[in-house]
Amino acid sequence: MTVLEKIHKKLDGLYPEMVETRRYLHMHPELSFKEVETARYIADFYKNLGIRPREHVGGNGVVARVKGAKPGKTIALRADFDALPIQEENDVPYQSQVPGVMHACGHDGHTATLLMLAKAIHELKDELEGEYVFIHQHAEEYAPGGAKAMIEDGCLEGVDAIFGTHLWATVPVGHIQYRRGPFMAAADRFEVTIQGHGGHGAQPHLSKDAVVVGAQLVTNLQQVISRRINPIRSAVLTVGSFSSGDAFNIIADTAKITGTVRTFDEDVRDRVEKEIERIIQGTCLAADCTYDYHYFRGYPPVVNHEAETAFLADCAKEIEGVTNVEEVDPSMIGEDFAYYLQHVKGVFFFTGADPEKADPAYPHHHPRFDIHEKAMLIAAKTLGAAAIRYQNV
Amino acid sequence: MTVLEKIHKKLDGLYPEMVETRRYLHMHPELSFKEVETARYIADFYKNLGIRPREHVGGNGVVARVKGAKPGKTIALRADFDALPIQEENDVPYQSQVPGVMHACGHDGHTATLLMLAKAIHELKDELEGEYVFIHQHAEEYAPGGAKAMIEDGCLEGVDAIFGTHLWATVPVGHIQYRRGPFMAAADRFEVTIQGHGGHGAQPHLSKDAVVVGAQLVTNLQQVISRRINPIRSAVLTVGSFSSGDAFNIIADTAKITGTVRTFDEDVRDRVEKEIERIIQGTCLAADCTYDYHYFRGYPPVVNHEAETAFLADCAKEIEGVTNVEEVDPSMIGEDFAYYLQHVKGVFFFTGADPEKADPAYPHHHPRFDIHEKAMLIAAKTLGAAAIRYQNV
Amino acid sequence: MTVLEKIHKKLDGLYPEMVETRRYLHMHPELSFKEVETARYIADFYKNLGIRPREHVGGNGVVARVKGAKPGKTIALRADFDALPIQEENDVPYQSQVPGVMHACGHDGHTATLLMLAKAIHELKDELEGEYVFIHQHAEEYAPGGAKAMIEDGCLEGVDAIFGTHLWATVPVGHIQYRRGPFMAAADRFEVTIQGHGGHGAQPHLSKDAVVVGAQLVTNLQQVISRRINPIRSAVLTVGSFSSGDAFNIIADTAKITGTVRTFDEDVRDRVEKEIERIIQGTCLAADCTYDYHYFRGYPPVVNHEAETAFLADCAKEIEGVTNVEEVDPSMIGEDFAYYLQHVKGVFFFTGADPEKADPAYPHHHPRFDIHEKAMLIAAKTLGAAAIRYQNV
Amino acid sequence: MTVLEKIHKKLDGLYPEMVETRRYLHMHPELSFKEVETARYIADFYKNLGIRPREHVGGNGVVARVKGAKPGKTIALRADFDALPIQEENDVPYQSQVPGVMHACGHDGHTATLLMLAKAIHELKDELEGEYVFIHQHAEEYAPGGAKAMIEDGCLEGVDAIFGTHLWATVPVGHIQYRRGPFMAAADRFEVTIQGHGGHGAQPHLSKDAVVVGAQLVTNLQQVISRRINPIRSAVLTVGSFSSGDAFNIIADTAKITGTVRTFDEDVRDRVEKEIERIIQGTCLAADCTYDYHYFRGYPPVVNHEAETAFLADCAKEIEGVTNVEEVDPSMIGEDFAYYLQHVKGVFFFTGADPEKADPAYPHHHPRFDIHEKAMLIAAKTLGAAAIRYQNV
Repeated sequence: MTVLEKIHKKLDGLYPEMVETRRYLHMHPELSFKEVETARYIADFYKNLGIRPREHVGGNGVVARVKGAKPGKTIALRADFDALPIQEENDVPYQSQVPGVMHACGHDGHTATLLMLAKAIHELKDELEGEYVFIHQHAEEYAPGGAKAMIEDGCLEGVDAIFGTHLWATVPVGHIQYRRGPFMAAADRFEVTIQGHGGHGAQPHLSKDAVVVGAQLVTNLQQVISRRINPIRSAVLTVGSFSSGDAFNIIADTAKITGTVRTFDEDVRDRVEKEIERIIQGTCLAADCTYDYHYFRGYPPVVNHEAETAFLADCAKEIEGVTNVEEVDPSMIGEDFAYYLQHVKGVFFFTGADPEKADPAYPHHHPRFDIHEKAMLIAAKTLGAAAIRYQNV
Repeated sequence: MTVLEKIHKKLDGLYPEMVETRRYLHMHPELSFKEVETARYIADFYKNLGIRPREHVGGNGVVARVKGAKPGKTIALRADFDALPIQEENDVPYQSQVPGVMHACGHDGHTATLLMLAKAIHELKDELEGEYVFIHQHAEEYAPGGAKAMIEDGCLEGVDAIFGTHLWATVPVGHIQYRRGPFMAAADRFEVTIQGHGGHGAQPHLSKDAVVVGAQLVTNLQQVISRRINPIRSAVLTVGSFSSGDAFNIIADTAKITGTVRTFDEDVRDRVEKEIERIIQGTCLAADCTYDYHYFRGYPPVVNHEAETAFLADCAKEIEGVTNVEEVDPSMIGEDFAYYLQHVKGVFFFTGADPEKADPAYPHHHPRFDIHEKAMLIAAKTLGAAAIRYQNV
Repeated sequence: MTVLEKIHKKLDGLYPEMVETRRYLHMHPELSFKEVETARYIADFYKNLGIRPREHVGGNGVVARVKGAKPGKTIALRADFDALPIQEENDVPYQSQVPGVMHACGHDGHTATLLMLAKAIHELKDELEGEYVFIHQHAEEYAPGGAKAMIEDGCLEGVDAIFGTHLWATVPVGHIQYRRGPFMAAADRFEVTIQGHGGHGAQPHLSKDAVVVGAQLVTNLQQVISRRINPIRSAVLTVGSFSSGDAFNIIADTAKITGTVRTFDEDVRDRVEKEIERIIQGTCLAADCTYDYHYFRGYPPVVNHEAETAFLADCAKEIEGVTNVEEVDPSMIGEDFAYYLQHVKGVFFFTGADPEKADPAYPHHHPRFDIHEKAMLIAAKTLGAAAIRYQNV
Repeated sequence: MTVLEKIHKKLDGLYPEMVETRRYLHMHPELSFKEVETARYIADFYKNLGIRPREHVGGNGVVARVKGAKPGKTIALRADFDALPIQEENDVPYQSQVPGVMHACGHDGHTATLLMLAKAIHELKDELEGEYVFIHQHAEEYAPGGAKAMIEDGCLEGVDAIFGTHLWATVPVGHIQYRRGPFMAAADRFEVTIQGHGGHGAQPHLSKDAVVVGAQLVTNLQQVISRRINPIRSAVLTVGSFSSGDAFNIIADTAKITGTVRTFDEDVRDRVEKEIERIIQGTCLAADCTYDYHYFRGYPPVVNHEAETAFLADCAKEIEGVTNVEEVDPSMIGEDFAYYLQHVKGVFFFTGADPEKADPAYPHHHPRFDIHEKAMLIAAKTLGAAAIRYQNV
């Protein structure tokens, strides 16, 4: 039995604890940059194993290192642990206990996966070569994210390669999806405040109606993608929130709009930023209103390294429970895993996690999002295989 | 010196207390149907005068009656006392002390006006004919309003005629405005919830974007007035609030929209209600969304009685400080004074109250709305004159 | 039998010729300012009666005068005779013979009415006092219209009063509708050309799509009425035509939009003109396009004279076939009869002419518009009564 | 000197005739399916060379065959020859002589290129192996196109491989652009007629305004691309024409809209077709209008064959004047060359033809579109090289 086989066997035995850990985290979600209790929970886990983790790495990040008995490469594995401002609508025993906050992106699963893998590796460290760095990253969901700060705070020190995965609810369990080169998009944020002129709901002619102007803006912004971007170059512009007015009979003074932009190319990104402003400017001029516009550049695109991607695909094919390993289209979703890949070699991939509760599965960031917990075991084994086998690359 | 002259003289003397009372109320606003402390304050005022008011009339309403020494007609005068869900932006010593709540419609002034007039009449009751009913009404701003419930609870019992005024910030001090027949509009409320399908901001094709559908709805609703209503028949449709989505990178599941409709004619009112639904239906169909729509009929139009309006105009012309008495266009603003006029004769009019702080003055329901306090004195004298002189009509 | 009774009797006898005349005109419609044949037809009619009309009055206008044997007042009666750029969709024996041109506003009926009335008056001229001026006006449908030019060319010379009517298809036969003071709206025209940047339909990002910008403009313009005009002050803004692009797969370079604005008040008119430009400006800025905007002030409002309106209402009540005479709301429709009333006393009114073919009747300017021909007889008798009886006012 | 070198030398000599031919065709453009004179011109050219072409192939197509002295492969070369419904705005001596029709896509150049190449090959046929098929195709611009019918009529009989190029005005002269696999998009057409209810411009409430509904539809259709299609899967939806209303003061009865859809994937194509209808349906429901919708599937995507694409790239690199040969992004533009590639091996590529008159160059289908005529020589030489060298593949 190889050491990798032993790790996989240990993971099988740890599966109930993995599920329990994930459910505990699911019930206690914390928003990005506010994950104090989650970080403490992770650190405590390592302390209980007898490992002293680095805490408060670049914020709420936690990094644990396990050194094998023999010399070798240093391999990092990363899991993120923040949650989202969504009110859970799943009626499950492990439902979020925090009103308006939910692990609707599977980071609870990522964390449980990595903790159990760390435990398995720790228990077999005497048989292992090299060093294993478990990066528990805070704040993946909200730019500027935790990755950049953790890297600046040294989490990649001495690291030769990094691997990471995202449990993916709309992909069947048993599937591993990857892509060489650009895999996930640059993810930016924008905020607009329209300043109208409030007044009585019965006197529109004495006011400048911010609800109407904001609504027009949302409609007009659809043209950025439909008319102004090269259709061959993928881009997304989503207005995520619109908030204007407090009373049914008062004309609103201001409208607040926030959104996200996803692109793969720097010139498309530039044009989207510029076209948004042009549209805001014209829409406000037409209504004699003023505005405030901020565009925040978020994560760069995730660009997988060629050789490591091929290596990972090979590893994945031999994992128990994996039925399909395929190269897929890039995703418009952003990930600050992008930063790690700017510093060291590595690959980020998707692990199928369709919970089979609905057809099609509820997508990520949906109030009814859930994962298939078995997917965590596959993710743990795949990451484990990559980490151990990379010693021989 | 006539008794009316004596009342006017007393009012001059009471002006500092009137201002103080108004400012106290301004600092302690309460939302419609929640005016517990304001009602208590009013009741206490009467109790201190030795008058036992009826409290909790139709809810939070307060009614005080003062009987003259001689027989005569029973005249009601009405002031409303609720505030609005607006965050005050005036930097004044008497600024609202309640975050997000503000007397942005002058009801603080109405109450101070009526309290001082009641005090003056009470002090001269031995010289007066008839009876005077001081109706302090709660909840004018929010349908179903307080008037209907107070009438059902007997506040108009025995009343021969009623007079009421609204301090009007966009009209100069010294002006009294009235109109025979229809003066203020029917005021309805509607609420729409659009049910889309939330999701990740980077995957629009897997979601149904409630922000986009709601925005389109607001734009489409403009056509109700611009295209579907007889342009000769005035109507207003205002969307007062739009709320959708909590995060910049999540596609919103639902959008909530509330608004108000103002009309003078029943058939226009019917058509507006129907066209709103038609537009919601089509807008949602186009996006494969569902909806929930409620239309609440609010106050009927304020229809002034012919003879009482002419009488009031005559009275107004002789008030000190009044420089202009004019018949004006009807207003699209609603008022539950409408209900009183369905039961007894009377008239509702505007008392100019431009605070001369901005040009033009901030309109009613604006965060910077204010009144000229001198207008309260004119309002008190005009209502007083109407009440006393109506004995001889 | 009075001379008026004789005129009415003659009109009864002339009814078949009236119908025949109207149908001939209906089959041979001519567009505004191009009514050469229609004008000749009218002039010939008078010449056949032995009357020498003035031709080419202010353009294609024709004016005939008939002098009674006795002295008296000079009364003008007016009928317009131009048609519209509409393709008739009525399947009737007298269908328009000119493709794309149609008497869809009843001017054929107006002309037939006035010609027969002129014939009747002419035949009875020896018994009549005063002088009768039959104004056959060209170009009512298209500003600057024919009225202004005909007045400048002397058609009102010596005239004491003028009467005119419009056959009204959506009002039942037998009804006469009038209004003292403002009766019909000022009617303006505007034209917008949006200059985009054409290109291949598959390359939106290299073009500026004039169809999309024009479409947005039409939608945005709805706000002029719904949000920016005092709802008490009636106004209409209609975009009548939108034309952009010739091929399905080419992005359009320009979009051409024309429309009309109707108002009663000069300040509303000013604001509408200004708000249209503001909206064009903003809409074009948002799309980086340029524009050309022209606003043409058309006819002023039709303001009926008080005394003449009351007089006309009295006359109408006694006409055979008239079952209802009522004061009605003003109409948003424009009429260059407005100019005559700026020079001499008079009144313009509606004669019910519902053809009872559809419920409700097709409105004016509709491809299926028609009139009830009996209405012409009522119109002729009412105008005749007004003309004759005004001698005794 | 190889025979290919001889052909290239002959082409150098034929260049003035090539320019003259192109300019003649430019001055005499004919719309798709109406290219009677152009076809005759092409056939006459071959007849003058002593070649009897097949005429009326699948419509207006012309096919000429030249057999080399030695046996070998049969190679087809294709040029299209129809023009577009665009009014030329170039002020050049060879300006289109046909109002509203223009060679705004370079097909004049394609034809001149192929005619001169045929002449050169014909003159050297005694030294050549194989057979050369010159396919002059009508109606490339308008589905169902000419290619399909010409193939069904036998134009590819015995053909081993086909080559074709498009002169490309936005690419510098000297550049050759190609792509393995999907290169150009499926191109579909759609037509919508909205049926409203016409009326007088002053009476919107009695009508259903087709201009307003059509405008809304154009705006709403932007969401198909921006919200309902997987952003990774490229798609274009362009509304090319919008026509509604004839008069500024008449509310339009109908609105006619035509457009094009470009996609690479069958499921995206299906969804776009369906979403367009959903949006039409909802938009019309909201306005109580009806509609007529037709979606016509046009050309399939152009999918270049792997080996032939690599071969062509090799050939191109050695052509005099070619400075750059590059694999590029796919184009959203459609081409019925797609059909040929479904039957025989081959490749379609772009030949840079920027006329250097504007920066950036006016795109295809623009009223100021033009080509650099030198590009024809490069195209002729590249096609010639591919045809001759393919004998040895």
